Amino acid sequence: MAESQWRFGGNSKVVGAGAMTLRGVMEGVMKNLDENDGRGVIHLSQGDPSAFPSFRASAFAEEAVSNALRSANFNGYSSTAGLPAARSAVAEYLSKDLPYNVTSDDVFLTNGCTQALEAALTTLARSGANILLPRPGYPDYEARAAFVGLEARHFDLVPENDWEVDLAAVEALKDENTVAIVIINPGNPCGNVFKYDHLKKISETAKKMGILVIADEVYGHLTFGSNPFTPMGVFASIAPIITLGSLSKKWIVPGWRIGWLVINDIDGILTKHGIVDTIKGFFNISSDPVTFIQAALPEILLKTPTEFYDKIVNLFGDSADKCYKLTNEIPGISCPIKPQGCMFLMLKLDLSKLEGIKDDLDFCCKLAKEESVVLVPGVGLGLKNWMRVTFAVEESYIDEAFRRMRAFCERHAKKHTKISYYVESPIFDFIYV
Amino acid sequence: MAESQWRFGGNSKVVGAGAMTLRGVMEGVMKNLDENDGRGVIHLSQGDPSAFPSFRASAFAEEAVSNALRSANFNGYSSTAGLPAARSAVAEYLSKDLPYNVTSDDVFLTNGCTQALEAALTTLARSGANILLPRPGYPDYEARAAFVGLEARHFDLVPENDWEVDLAAVEALKDENTVAIVIINPGNPCGNVFKYDHLKKISETAKKMGILVIADEVYGHLTFGSNPFTPMGVFASIAPIITLGSLSKKWIVPGWRIGWLVINDIDGILTKHGIVDTIKGFFNISSDPVTFIQAALPEILLKTPTEFYDKIVNLFGDSADKCYKLTNEIPGISCPIKPQGCMFLMLKLDLSKLEGIKDDLDFCCKLAKEESVVLVPGVGLGLKNWMRVTFAVEESYIDEAFRRMRAFCERHAKKHTKISYYVESPIFDFIYV
Ligand SMILES: Cc1ncc(COP(=O)(O)O)c(C=O)c1O
Ligand SMILES: Cc1ncc(COP(=O)(O)O)c(C=O)c1O
Repeated sequence: MAESQWRFGGNSKVVGAGAMTLRGVMEGVMKNLDENDGRGVIHLSQGDPSAFPSFRASAFAEEAVSNALRSANFNGYSSTAGLPAARSAVAEYLSKDLPYNVTSDDVFLTNGCTQALEAALTTLARSGANILLPRPGYPDYEARAAFVGLEARHFDLVPENDWEVDLAAVEALKDENTVAIVIINPGNPCGNVFKYDHLKKISETAKKMGILVIADEVYGHLTFGSNPFTPMGVFASIAPIITLGSLSKKWIVPGWRIGWLVINDIDGILTKHGIVDTIKGFFNISSDPVTFIQAALPEILLKTPTEFYDKIVNLFGDSADKCYKLTNEIPGISCPIKPQGCMFLMLKLDLSKLEGIKDDLDFCCKLAKEESVVLVPGVGLGLKNWMRVTFAVEESYIDEAFRRMRAFCERHAKKHTKISYYVESPIFDFIYV
Repeated sequence: MAESQWRFGGNSKVVGAGAMTLRGVMEGVMKNLDENDGRGVIHLSQGDPSAFPSFRASAFAEEAVSNALRSANFNGYSSTAGLPAARSAVAEYLSKDLPYNVTSDDVFLTNGCTQALEAALTTLARSGANILLPRPGYPDYEARAAFVGLEARHFDLVPENDWEVDLAAVEALKDENTVAIVIINPGNPCGNVFKYDHLKKISETAKKMGILVIADEVYGHLTFGSNPFTPMGVFASIAPIITLGSLSKKWIVPGWRIGWLVINDIDGILTKHGIVDTIKGFFNISSDPVTFIQAALPEILLKTPTEFYDKIVNLFGDSADKCYKLTNEIPGISCPIKPQGCMFLMLKLDLSKLEGIKDDLDFCCKLAKEESVVLVPGVGLGLKNWMRVTFAVEESYIDEAFRRMRAFCERHAKKHTKISYYVESPIFDFIYV
């Protein structure tokens, strides 16, 4: 074959990073879906309930955006980092939960939390640097770290310990090139909510290590268990914090693509170390969120009727309970820890009870193929033989999805074996004896 | 001073790139503005007339976005690369001007043309690679190239030649690591529109060199001179083209942040060389444009009444004429080539006629300070002792801005010198003799 005359080729770092994202991982699962299954596909993979009537965005927020659009005052470019009124609304909104005030200068508006984490990791990337990421976690961090050349080092969230951070492991991971630790709270994918004291310990560990904390609070306030939500920024006098968030989850509008990166840094350490200037540089070269949506932020953040949030959180709490209960009635899977927040729970796979299932990825591919139910394989999140399920869907979907999952697991259950859930779910005895 | 306990620092590539953007350059000029000038500031720096009543976005486009928002069908995440209907609308819109059809698979939706150029340059970045950029140009290319580690090499747009590309220089710049050439047409900052034959020659040169063409057509169709707009994609059978565009300019909605990157590649060369997969990888790790705005694209692109475009183009044509004429009546500045498109014209500075003005940057800083008029110094665009002026503003602004510029230049004109404009503008004789 003649050598090509064309000299260009693709940037391999981009392809590699793209394959690491959840989007990349899910492509592999989804291609098993059976087009001929007339029952339709049930996606329990993404944290996006916006298509369901029960989770429709608040009319109030919709009105605020529509008014900003129709005013024609916000068709133009925004200033870098965002409209002053929008930045100041985020500052006011977040300050409500803090023992001090963040100012509008501390706030940078972003295209969703996705761009906020891009900004944080890009800012910190330096030759040889490494960053500590939770396992299981949200793979966009791994993808972005790989892209900007930050080495990812993983610490475990321990299921036996309510998915708390293994702080001893964190200290063992660090070396002189460690720059930050990422904490996702409320937790994707575990559905856990960290206690005040645990967050305090994390900040103290960060201080001891001389690193900053990136606090991904995109699921902030979405909690319905015994642990209330504490923003990491509460501990900004211990270690410097960069807080990330967005409208996507609490307001159920992930398609609106607006979020924030906020500096919580009482002692000005991030300014002193050039981090704030670097963040400004990042936003100078980046596209801003839509101006008229920015303009609606003060209304949305500060005036949405609380009934909207209450309704959403109640629905999530009920769904989470239901998923937890149903999971533990199905052979071969279990949910050891009841979720307290976020939109997800982690199911543990017990391969000893299943036949013809190799691992979590195999489970997800076969479940997609045979039952048209889509889950996220834990291997894509760093935790093999677990699976992530979202409970942020309409109740009828949960019922139907778990019916199909039960049918799937029963079909693949090891026959003629006494199994431990046996006692808990006597109703299925006739099938398994 | 004790050594800091904190280990992190900012990514210097980000700070450097941020300072190279127009935003970065303009910060330096704007800080000269005199807050106490009661006349108010006139910005002729940015291509964003959206705040002026004459340039209000079309009610049709506003309605389309508002309807998509209010349907509540588009609050969720979009698919990577964009909603299929939106991608297909862009394909149909662009195909109207092409001798073949681009398909929706060729289209990737972006956060404005800014993210489109980010995607293109990021995709092509490889160790040691270089890219050919126009001088004068749009400095976001330089900034993004610096950030991704692409070496920028500059070819001149030649004013004596209607700002055409110096193709001999292009060939002299290339080596075996050259991957692409960037063409902005209609041209920012020169206000020129390339002829069909010149574009064809560019594509032939690219073919000869084995590189691809990145065609920035964000000002596509905004032409009012003798050269009609020809999309570079017309020559996709000669060399592979990546076309960039957005709603920002033609629809006067830069704050809506929606654009596109389109593959024009009749022989499938970009696919074969891994470029298309790399672009997909880029969009896997990136935040998408707002879903409900994507949903409005078919209406906006394919059904906006043509009266809207006609009105805008006529206004631009009239404004450009006026600026051209007024400029050539002012001592010390001139506009050698009448603009034919885009939103800008380049003014040439004649330092021999001015006193106490060192260069274009000095001119812009002093003009900002003394007259509250903001222009872009050519040095920020790669062309010293020229300045960029936008004519995309309300007519009354042009009148007032040029009155102030005239006062400024007259005040700074060399006294007691016979000067060449003298004959052309006898009305000022009494001042300068
Ligand atoms: C932990 C976490 N961080 C960030 C994001 C991205 O948020 P956004 O949709 O606002 O970009 C998500 C989305 O699922 C997430 O789960
Ligand atoms: C030549 C050129 N390319 C790209 C852009 C960015 O366009 P957008 O506002 O759609 O991101 C601009 C904006 O001024 C421009 O002039």
